[in-house]
Parts: sequence; structure tokens; C-alpha cells
Amino acid sequence: MKFNFNLEKTDDATEARAGTLTTPHGDIATPVFMPVATLGTVKTLTPEEVKALGAGIILGNAYHLYLRPGVDTIKKLGGLHRFMGWDGPVLTDSGGFQVFSLGHLRSINDDSVVFRSHIDGSEHTFSPERATEIQSELGADIIMTFDDCPAHTGGYDDIKQSMSRTHRWAERCLNGHDNPGQAMFGIVQGGMFPELRRESASFMTSLDFPGYAIGGLSVGESKDTTWSMVDEVVPLLPDGKPRYLMGVGSPEDLFEGVARGIDMFDCVLPTRVARNGSLFTSLGRQSIRKAQYRAMEAPIEDGCDCYTCRSFSAAYLHHLFKTEEMLGYRLATIHNLRFLISLMRRIRRSIIDGSFSAFKDGFLSCYQVTDLNIRQAQKQKWIEAQRNKKPDILTSYE
Amino acid sequence: MKFNFNLEKTDDATEARAGTLTTPHGDIATPVFMPVATLGTVKTLTPEEVKALGAGIILGNAYHLYLRPGVDTIKKLGGLHRFMGWDGPVLTDSGGFQVFSLGHLRSINDDSVVFRSHIDGSEHTFSPERATEIQSELGADIIMTFDDCPAHTGGYDDIKQSMSRTHRWAERCLNGHDNPGQAMFGIVQGGMFPELRRESASFMTSLDFPGYAIGGLSVGESKDTTWSMVDEVVPLLPDGKPRYLMGVGSPEDLFEGVARGIDMFDCVLPTRVARNGSLFTSLGRQSIRKAQYRAMEAPIEDGCDCYTCRSFSAAYLHHLFKTEEMLGYRLATIHNLRFLISLMRRIRRSIIDGSFSAFKDGFLSCYQVTDLNIRQAQKQKWIEAQRNKKPDILTSYE
Repeated sequence: MKFNFNLEKTDDATEARAGTLTTPHGDIATPVFMPVATLGTVKTLTPEEVKALGAGIILGNAYHLYLRPGVDTIKKLGGLHRFMGWDGPVLTDSGGFQVFSLGHLRSINDDSVVFRSHIDGSEHTFSPERATEIQSELGADIIMTFDDCPAHTGGYDDIKQSMSRTHRWAERCLNGHDNPGQAMFGIVQGGMFPELRRESASFMTSLDFPGYAIGGLSVGESKDTTWSMVDEVVPLLPDGKPRYLMGVGSPEDLFEGVARGIDMFDCVLPTRVARNGSLFTSLGRQSIRKAQYRAMEAPIEDGCDCYTCRSFSAAYLHHLFKTEEMLGYRLATIHNLRFLISLMRRIRRSIIDGSFSAFKDGFLSCYQVTDLNIRQAQKQKWIEAQRNKKPDILTSYE
Repeated sequence: MKFNFNLEKTDDATEARAGTLTTPHGDIATPVFMPVATLGTVKTLTPEEVKALGAGIILGNAYHLYLRPGVDTIKKLGGLHRFMGWDGPVLTDSGGFQVFSLGHLRSINDDSVVFRSHIDGSEHTFSPERATEIQSELGADIIMTFDDCPAHTGGYDDIKQSMSRTHRWAERCLNGHDNPGQAMFGIVQGGMFPELRRESASFMTSLDFPGYAIGGLSVGESKDTTWSMVDEVVPLLPDGKPRYLMGVGSPEDLFEGVARGIDMFDCVLPTRVARNGSLFTSLGRQSIRKAQYRAMEAPIEDGCDCYTCRSFSAAYLHHLFKTEEMLGYRLATIHNLRFLISLMRRIRRSIIDGSFSAFKDGFLSCYQVTDLNIRQAQKQKWIEAQRNKKPDILTSYE
């Protein structure tokens, strides 16, 4: 059996689950945080480093890889795994989200989407069949259906129409999918409308995918809304299939998602904020650029087992950021990813030994969540940088 | 004996020498190329990676480290070795070259130099004694005298005056030097005037330093001039002491310098051009951005034993540069440094087995030297970027 999901334990007090996902490139212990390697590299790191962090699976993106270096090139070079030197499991997103947000949308109808490349403005067409074919050629272990991703501020009628299209496209993706080495996950949409979320969950599960994602969340809505939408969807998903909450990945959100029965997460947050010098600690995110770290001999997080904390003082990391040395971006990326991966391992152990709720409460009582206003300002800054195509290494597309 | 130079073999046909330099942090096989770690990091790499490349000794810079993070900070954190996590030999340059070129020179007299920081314009004073003290506190194995570095276009009288000051300063550096764990090298100056070069070599050797550097070369003059100045100086240096040609490090120049009896080299070239996608191969420097590499499955240099060539196709490296992924800068840096370090090892072996001239001729018959005009245009571009303080990672100070 190439693809399988084995549920090992469900928490008594919450919906938290511990399981194992089997893929052609190896087993993944769930719940799992998946580092993002949009363009075939987890930014700043080698595949060996990503493996050493304990990453069980990483994420590529069909839209980005289709544009650069091109699917033909990757296919010629033996597929995405070989191209990037990663022999573990890979999941590719279909590119739906990117086509609808990063690319310049030209036209959309039931058949396909015409968009302009965010790089050179060239015109391209994606359809459910084409997105499936691209992902088949990239060769990921898990691929995603091609979905219609409207703005989260859309009204009921627009969202309903878009959701219905997502459903019709999901059927076409499934029909077009003939690569036995890949598992295709369906994506539940439905905006911020409970009724539509339920309808979408019911429809998707009727197609019997080997796994389900919840898309269209964490796109600007409040956290309360995010979690209430997740609460609508999860009870309608089958217990025996993995559940993937797309685009979510702050430490506090991992706990909230796991508690609601989510098994898989991905987010550019840990790697993106790392390159801005923002580091996860048990007390919350800290900016290594602050003067308090100027001469601090201890590592950024005492007791952390990552390469950065084992090897260097906070003062050295502070110095690297102050002098804009690339090694700083690497060391911060390593720390943040290891922080999330370690956290997820501890979460998994706590589910298995029945202490998840206590662990969650303990962690969240110490961890100060980054202020909503700061988070939104940071995100806005990034979005604007993307819009201006600022040739800045810190804001390159992920 | 903490510091020692053992000459093992001198070539019959040329002045090439093979030796071993012993320092408190380990032995260095010479001739040696020293990677540059101006700010306490070989740009983009961890200390473990630098070690894995086979680097025997790396270079720090007193001027840059004095400004950031500051000597007190490094001292408090246990010295430069510990601060940057490198337990091998380190050489620090005194900062003379930087004070006279990067900083905004304010005033200079026989006592000291007042300059403005290139970072924030703040005013600082360096003297021979202070430069020596700073280097003592940084804790390098080899430190350099503080020299007066005039523009290479200076007239005879100016260069003679500057050289005489360099000589008086060298005596003061020696008098101020009381760290038994460090060897201080004297720097020969004298501009492009054979007579002054000879005078400077004679004076410096009269002070009996444990090693000698040739400074003020490779600063814009023609290659012919560089080598004719080296030819004036080397015969006046004692056989039993190491000779260091500052700022020289292209593959072809390593051969030329070794053939003239030079033992040590440093240059930012391999790391700087790497970050622009220019890679050393046995045929010459190649830009990985060129379309010919778009789908090339072979590594950039067949048979190269570096991590980059062992692990990735040229196509993947091309992709990383096209998408401005930081991993590309790392992989290119690894390749270029390994290329030079491997080359130097083969040069050393050839000296020992008597085949140096044949190896030199063979290498240079294949290796196409980068056109002088291209090199000068690249250097000019970099100098201008420095002047404009462009906040670009590719042009940060080295």
C-alpha cells in the first residue's frame, strides 16, 4: 500500500489525533507541520538541513514551479524530488490560491482560468485537468485539487458560485488523475459562511478523496472566524482520512488546529519572519535585532536543540542581522522551523500519553501571541512589497 | 612552539614553496588560500561548512569588527574564534586598508588617523598601538601591522612619505605587541615604485617579523605591474618566513604568485563573484545564469568534489539564481571556495613532487582568464554600489 493513514490515538478531552501517514517516499507522523519549499527549496536551507530539522514532508507549489523552471525542465531532470535533492515526502499545492492572488487574473469561466505571470506578465491557462497534469509531472506524493479561491470579503452569492465551481473542478481533477503514485486531496471551500462550509465538506467527502484540506482560511479574517469555520467542517470529515488546514502555522494556531482535529499544517510564517529576525521562543516571538541581544552570551532560546542555539550566542545572531549577513537568515530559519517541528512532536507525544490539554494550557500560558495589529501590519508590508515587485531577497515569493 | 614556519620543499624551476605554518589553533599547509570572513562569517556559510571545504585559515578584519559588533562585545564573548564558532587559525587584517579606502578619511598625521565610519559617519581614531590592541583583543593567531595605504596612483614623493610612515608605524605596532599567542606580520608597501618596494622590504625585514605581507597591490594597477612589484620584494624576504600577498586570489593569480614564492593569499573574489552567479570551472569563470544551464543535468563542473557539484544539477543552481533563492548564493560560494582550496592542494602536491610548472602550464592552457575589461567593469560596479550604500545583500561589504 503506497498511501495510507493510520489513526493511532484520539484525545479524550479534545478532537486532537495522532496518526501516521504512509506515502511512497516515507511515513509522516501526524499532526505535522510542513515547511514550505515553494520554488523547490526551503528558503536558505539545503535538503540535508531540512531533514536534520526533522521535517517529515515539505511543500512545493505547482504555480511557481510551472512558471520557473517549468514543468518540462523538472520532468526532464527526474521530477521534483530529484531536482531539489529531497527524498522524503512532498505535497504540491495546485496553484489555485496563487493564480487567484499573485497572478494577474485575466478571465475565469467554468472551463479554465487565464492569468498573467507575476514575473513577466506572460499569459497562461490553468484548468483542473492541467493543474492535475502539472502536479503529476512534478511527481509529488500528495497533490491538491484545483480550486476557485475568491477574496474572503466576498458576499454569499459570489462565494456560493465560486464554491460550486470548486466542486465541479474537484470532480474533473479526480477524473483527470491517473498517477497511482500520488494521493489527491480535495479542498473544502465556502468562505466565511457556515452553511456553505458544511455544504462543501459534504460534497467533497462524497467524492471519497484519500485526504481533505480546508482552504480559503487564514487569508485576512479574524481568528474567531477561522476557528468557527474549521468547527463547521471537521465534524463532517471522515475520521479515517487526514485533514489539512492550509496556510496555518503559528505556534498558538497549531495548538488550536490540533485541538479541533487537524492533522496537517503548512505556513510560510516561520521562514518568512525568520528572515526578518523574528524568532520563536517559549515566551513568544522576539526580534533578534533588539539591543537586549547585543552582548547576550546565551542562545536565543535556552535548552533549544537546534543547530543555531547549540552553536551560537544570541549576540552573534544579533550581529549577523545587524550586518545583514546571509548566515543570519539561515540560522534564524533553522531555529524557527526546528521550534515548530519540535513543538509538533511534543504535541503528538502529549496526545498519545493523554496530556495534550495540559501541555496546550501550559504552553499558551507562557507564550505571548504576537499582537494582531503587529501581525497585520507585517503582512500588509509584505503584500505591498510583493505588489511592487521589490527586488528584495527578504520579500521574495514563497 | 606556538608559531612556526617549516619550509618543506622549494621548486627547482620556479620560486614555488611548500611548507607548514604552525599556529596556536592548528597547522596550515602552504601555499594556502584564506577565505575571507570580514565580519566574523565567511559570507553565507557556517563554520562547519568552511571547515568541510578544507579551509586551513580564515581572515577577519579589525576595522569592520571594531565598528560592528565592537571589540568589547567580542572580547566579552570570549574572542573572535568563540564568537563565530571557528576553532581553526584566524588572521586579522589591521584595518589600514579599510580606514584609508572605505571609511571617510578625516585627518592623518604621524600619530594616528581620524576617520568616519562607513556605516553611520561616527568619528573614530586608529593608531598603530590601537590597531594592535584591537587585534590582540579579537584574539587572532596572526595579526597585521597598521599601514598607511595611499591610492595606487600616487606620485613618488607621496608614496615615499606614506611608506616611511608605514615603517614608523610598523615599529610602533611591534613595540605595542605583547600578546604571546599571536604572530605579527609586517606589511611591505612602496606603491608601484621598484626602488621604494625594495627599500620597504629591506626595512621590514630588519624588524624581524615572523612573517611578511606585500600590501598595496591588486588595487587597480595592471597585472604586469603587480607581478613586477612582487618580483622586487620577494628576493629580499627571508626564506624561512611565510610570505603573504594581500588581496590576490583568482585561480590564475594563485599560480603566478606561488611561482614567485608567495605562501599565503586572500581575496573576496571567489565569494563575491559566487553571489553574482559566476562559478569557477577548469575552463574559466562561467555565469550560471546563462540559458545553456537551464536544463543541464550535469553539475557545473564534472568531477568536482564539492557539496554543490556532488548534490545538484547545473539546472537546479541556474533555477536558484533565476529565482534569487539564497540557497543559490550558498551553493555557489561552496563551489568557488572548494575550487580554490582544491586547486591550492594540487599546487602544493605538484611542488612536492616536482611537477609544479607542468601543472601550472596545463591548468592555464585550459583556463580562460576573465577579460580585463569585464573584471574592471564588475569591480567598478561593486565600488559604486559601496559608495551609494545600496542596501543590497549582493554588495554588502566584505
